[in-house]
Amino acid sequence: MIAAALDWGSSSLRAYRFDEAGQCVQTDARDAGIKFVSEDGFEDVFRELTSAWTRTGDRVLLSGMITSRNGWIESDYLPCPLPLTQLLDAGTRLALDGLDLVFLPGARQDAPADVMRGEELQLLGASSVYGDGVYITPGTHSKWARITSGVLEQFRTIPTGEVFDVLIKHSLIGALTSDGNWDEAAFLAGVERGNQLDSVLSDLFTTRSGVLLQQYSEAFAYAWLSGLLIGREIREGLATLGDQGARLTLIGSAPLCANYLKALSYLQLDAHAAEHDVTLSGYQQIIAHVTT
Amino acid sequence: MIAAALDWGSSSLRAYRFDEAGQCVQTDARDAGIKFVSEDGFEDVFRELTSAWTRTGDRVLLSGMITSRNGWIESDYLPCPLPLTQLLDAGTRLALDGLDLVFLPGARQDAPADVMRGEELQLLGASSVYGDGVYITPGTHSKWARITSGVLEQFRTIPTGEVFDVLIKHSLIGALTSDGNWDEAAFLAGVERGNQLDSVLSDLFTTRSGVLLQQYSEAFAYAWLSGLLIGREIREGLATLGDQGARLTLIGSAPLCANYLKALSYLQLDAHAAEHDVTLSGYQQIIAHVTT
Repeated sequence: MIAAALDWGSSSLRAYRFDEAGQCVQTDARDAGIKFVSEDGFEDVFRELTSAWTRTGDRVLLSGMITSRNGWIESDYLPCPLPLTQLLDAGTRLALDGLDLVFLPGARQDAPADVMRGEELQLLGASSVYGDGVYITPGTHSKWARITSGVLEQFRTIPTGEVFDVLIKHSLIGALTSDGNWDEAAFLAGVERGNQLDSVLSDLFTTRSGVLLQQYSEAFAYAWLSGLLIGREIREGLATLGDQGARLTLIGSAPLCANYLKALSYLQLDAHAAEHDVTLSGYQQIIAHVTT
Repeated sequence: MIAAALDWGSSSLRAYRFDEAGQCVQTDARDAGIKFVSEDGFEDVFRELTSAWTRTGDRVLLSGMITSRNGWIESDYLPCPLPLTQLLDAGTRLALDGLDLVFLPGARQDAPADVMRGEELQLLGASSVYGDGVYITPGTHSKWARITSGVLEQFRTIPTGEVFDVLIKHSLIGALTSDGNWDEAAFLAGVERGNQLDSVLSDLFTTRSGVLLQQYSEAFAYAWLSGLLIGREIREGLATLGDQGARLTLIGSAPLCANYLKALSYLQLDAHAAEHDVTLSGYQQIIAHVTT
């Protein structure tokens, strides 16, 4: 049986214990993401977490960055369109302590080149709850994905969070900004501009020039840049998926989703945030697929 | 008389000595940009360079980042449309050792907010040689400007070089690239894509995903990202200045201009690189304006 599943990302690790009926009976969470664990330390973390949860012959699922080149065991990327319940069959196996570890695969798209690793499980879980539509996992590398009948048809990574972060920390564009006092009006003005105009690189610079010309406070510039990039992400996400009228489901932390919901609502788009633990729902979809 | 002029930028300092007829008779260049000189060290550098060139009552012109908030004396930004020969009249004066130092102003645009400091002098010089048209100073913060009859009508800063630099050095997007072997075909493929498609944020990520899916070598990804951004800059520069058919004059270092010329030529745009010392030409335009 599938006794446990580990959602093991870059910065955190979340574990789920399942009973024989596939119900989640216990969870654990630690700041033991792969960037904090040395290459030969994965086994120890794994044993410590799961030894009391498993018996010989059990299976344990693993997903997230632990399946990447920098993780414990690298698994494949499966091509789109991808029926998400196939994830289990294509996992990479490792026998350890009498257990059958399954490193679930990521998903890929060949034109344009794109990859995800971990989000495909969240998408499986979320779509089992919320149905067909466009899903967004906002963040460092936001994913926009279209799911129909449990099939990941198409997706696109938009690196909004990373671009914002490097500009704020490492560029002159972001050097005159301040995150001290979030300016909601500036954020929405940025969202509107980023969503409407075909001048994304040029508009980035106004984050600096607006402060130099004393049109913007430093706090305004900070939220403006965030809004510009999120407005732009929304434009590109909808354009590349070709789903202008779709209902959008956000998957992520509450504060991040709240920000995106404000932007989407401002643009009069129909959106809501997933309220389930969609990773757990994803694992349970896989378990159901095996046992039925 | 105007005895000397200093083009004093962030990283370098270039000085010109003029005779009574306004002809340049001597030059000097040093790695003494403002980022290498302490705030109370500007006078010493100035005296060392110009003391043998000047007599009591002479004027010395200064332009570039030395006129910024982080420089020696901050000068104004003059609003566009700006007749460039007016730069001298609006300079900020400093009396030193019997000399009249004139810190030339920068240029500004209020909607959208934009600024330049130093390039306006190059634009004055270049347009005195090459006439009306669209000028580009490619680099960290590229400027695109339209000049008509010596008037800076409109400009836009496109921070192509800075975005490329921070992505290469500080992001996962650039982490899988290598600058070891410049791939010309990758660069031109990037230029084409960046110039055509409205998916700039999303396309940035293909720099990473293309390597992960083994479609791109690391060298391909490096030049591709450069091409994407320069192709995008060209699209936005022409769109915001509204000059699709204009002849484009590039101002900058030979290797940088050569790269832009390849991109512009690939896109079948009419472009050439300025071959004069346009900064010197700019100073000489100002001197001519004073003495005639």
